[in-house]
Amino acid sequence: MSFSPLDPQFETRVRASFARQRAMDTIGATLARVEPGIVEVALPYRADLTQQHGFLHAGIVATILDSACGYAAFSLMAADVAVLTVEYKINLLRPAQGERFVARAHVVRAGQTLTVCSGDAFAHTGAAEKLIATMLATVFAAPERDDLKQ
Amino acid sequence: MSFSPLDPQFETRVRASFARQRAMDTIGATLARVEPGIVEVALPYRADLTQQHGFLHAGIVATILDSACGYAAFSLMAADVAVLTVEYKINLLRPAQGERFVARAHVVRAGQTLTVCSGDAFAHTGAAEKLIATMLATVFAAPERDDLKQ
Amino acid sequence: MSFSPLDPQFETRVRASFARQRAMDTIGATLARVEPGIVEVALPYRADLTQQHGFLHAGIVATILDSACGYAAFSLMAADVAVLTVEYKINLLRPAQGERFVARAHVVRAGQTLTVCSGDAFAHTGAAEKLIATMLATVFAAPERDDLKQ
Amino acid sequence: MSFSPLDPQFETRVRASFARQRAMDTIGATLARVEPGIVEVALPYRADLTQQHGFLHAGIVATILDSACGYAAFSLMAADVAVLTVEYKINLLRPAQGERFVARAHVVRAGQTLTVCSGDAFAHTGAAEKLIATMLATVFAAPERDDLKQ
Repeated sequence: MSFSPLDPQFETRVRASFARQRAMDTIGATLARVEPGIVEVALPYRADLTQQHGFLHAGIVATILDSACGYAAFSLMAADVAVLTVEYKINLLRPAQGERFVARAHVVRAGQTLTVCSGDAFAHTGAAEKLIATMLATVFAAPERDDLKQ
Repeated sequence: MSFSPLDPQFETRVRASFARQRAMDTIGATLARVEPGIVEVALPYRADLTQQHGFLHAGIVATILDSACGYAAFSLMAADVAVLTVEYKINLLRPAQGERFVARAHVVRAGQTLTVCSGDAFAHTGAAEKLIATMLATVFAAPERDDLKQ
Repeated sequence: MSFSPLDPQFETRVRASFARQRAMDTIGATLARVEPGIVEVALPYRADLTQQHGFLHAGIVATILDSACGYAAFSLMAADVAVLTVEYKINLLRPAQGERFVARAHVVRAGQTLTVCSGDAFAHTGAAEKLIATMLATVFAAPERDDLKQ
Repeated sequence: MSFSPLDPQFETRVRASFARQRAMDTIGATLARVEPGIVEVALPYRADLTQQHGFLHAGIVATILDSACGYAAFSLMAADVAVLTVEYKINLLRPAQGERFVARAHVVRAGQTLTVCSGDAFAHTGAAEKLIATMLATVFAAPERDDLKQ
């Protein structure tokens, strides 16, 4: 599936919004890829983001997948709207064990108000890549002035 | 609904496991309440955990809800099992705006292998409490030695 | 939580829409309760709606829960909108074994465009009631003329 | 991704179990494709399975997707286990309008106890195919004698 962005400046807009997400900076996540309807967020392993068995905390895996899904949707939206995650479901498939993690999201269906995205998270160890989680998310395009209400 | 824990030392066990979740310490989350089948996790607002509009990042809201759900399930499990989140769904209901956040989870159905939990996240500003998110999660009791596999 | 309906004729409107859902009639489901933000759908057991072990098929349980959630949301909407389920998640908690099933849904958060509902399905055998499934659903208020698009 | 079934008789076993799902026969659904980790269920349009706007009821779309996901998982399981859907999430993407519907599911991750499946539902009108819904499901392999408990 290929999408044409409504806003030709979509990449600049996505990168600027991501840069304002202070939580991304705090956990060390970066925007690795921005294409129309496709976004990747990368995160190196950090011991201070782990759960009780030493793996990356599921909440952190969800955080980068949620950001990837939200920005995949945002990349196709008009220039004057804000993006809000309505809801998502995540399945944790394998322990989040690796040197580096990548959340890869794409738009499944772009509607006027609601966009549905699918995202996969991978753990990288050397050259090996393992699927560790999968997400299905609903994202809302809100008028910018009005971004506090759904 | 009231539950009797299989392990009378459930609170010690929950608190010890939570203390090993380094991600909780990193974001500043603490275990506020531990009862059979009920767990609360609290988190003060921090500007470095925000999204692009200055609210707490949805991923952080999900992280404390996921922990609350996982430990609510864990509180009812036998002493020798490990807890793993299989999956969850979260609905973000209002902007995560407040001075302090509380994730409150309870067990809906405790099975031998799988436990289903429901959790609500609230934003506190002064004395006011607002529901900001709700989660439905499936948690797995894994043999401790075997905690890497589902 | 108590809600005031935008449309005082909400019950008539919900009952009329339900009556147009031919699938409800085909499976034998009826509208048992309609209050602002709360709807119950009832279904007697039928052997021709079972899965491979003789229990009510999970898809049928989901169908009555989905209807209950959708109409709970619809009961609070303005008179001129159509209701569409955006998405839901369901956890099947126990086998759907019983003489009669009831899906009970209530609104968790009513927004202008999106409403979030929670629903529980119960199996009744004689006087006993057992929780068999729980649902979390997102419902969309669409302009009536425009009800084919999201 | 390709899977090797534990049971060489997987197709016979899937078809026999599907044939025992009386709900499938009642709504007119048939098993269109059975491969290791992949199952398709087909359903012709029927006016008596519609919702209030004349489209196929979302519950019916979910029913065939749930069956496709469950049997995709079952196709990879050992011969002596029973299959139970633990939970699923469905996003309804477009109105279920068409002459014929196909639910296509594949296994994302097959574990010893839990299998995660993804499914898409399509509406067919003449030669055109439209994606109308997507599902993410968790399926449980239960010992056959014990198939009433999770």
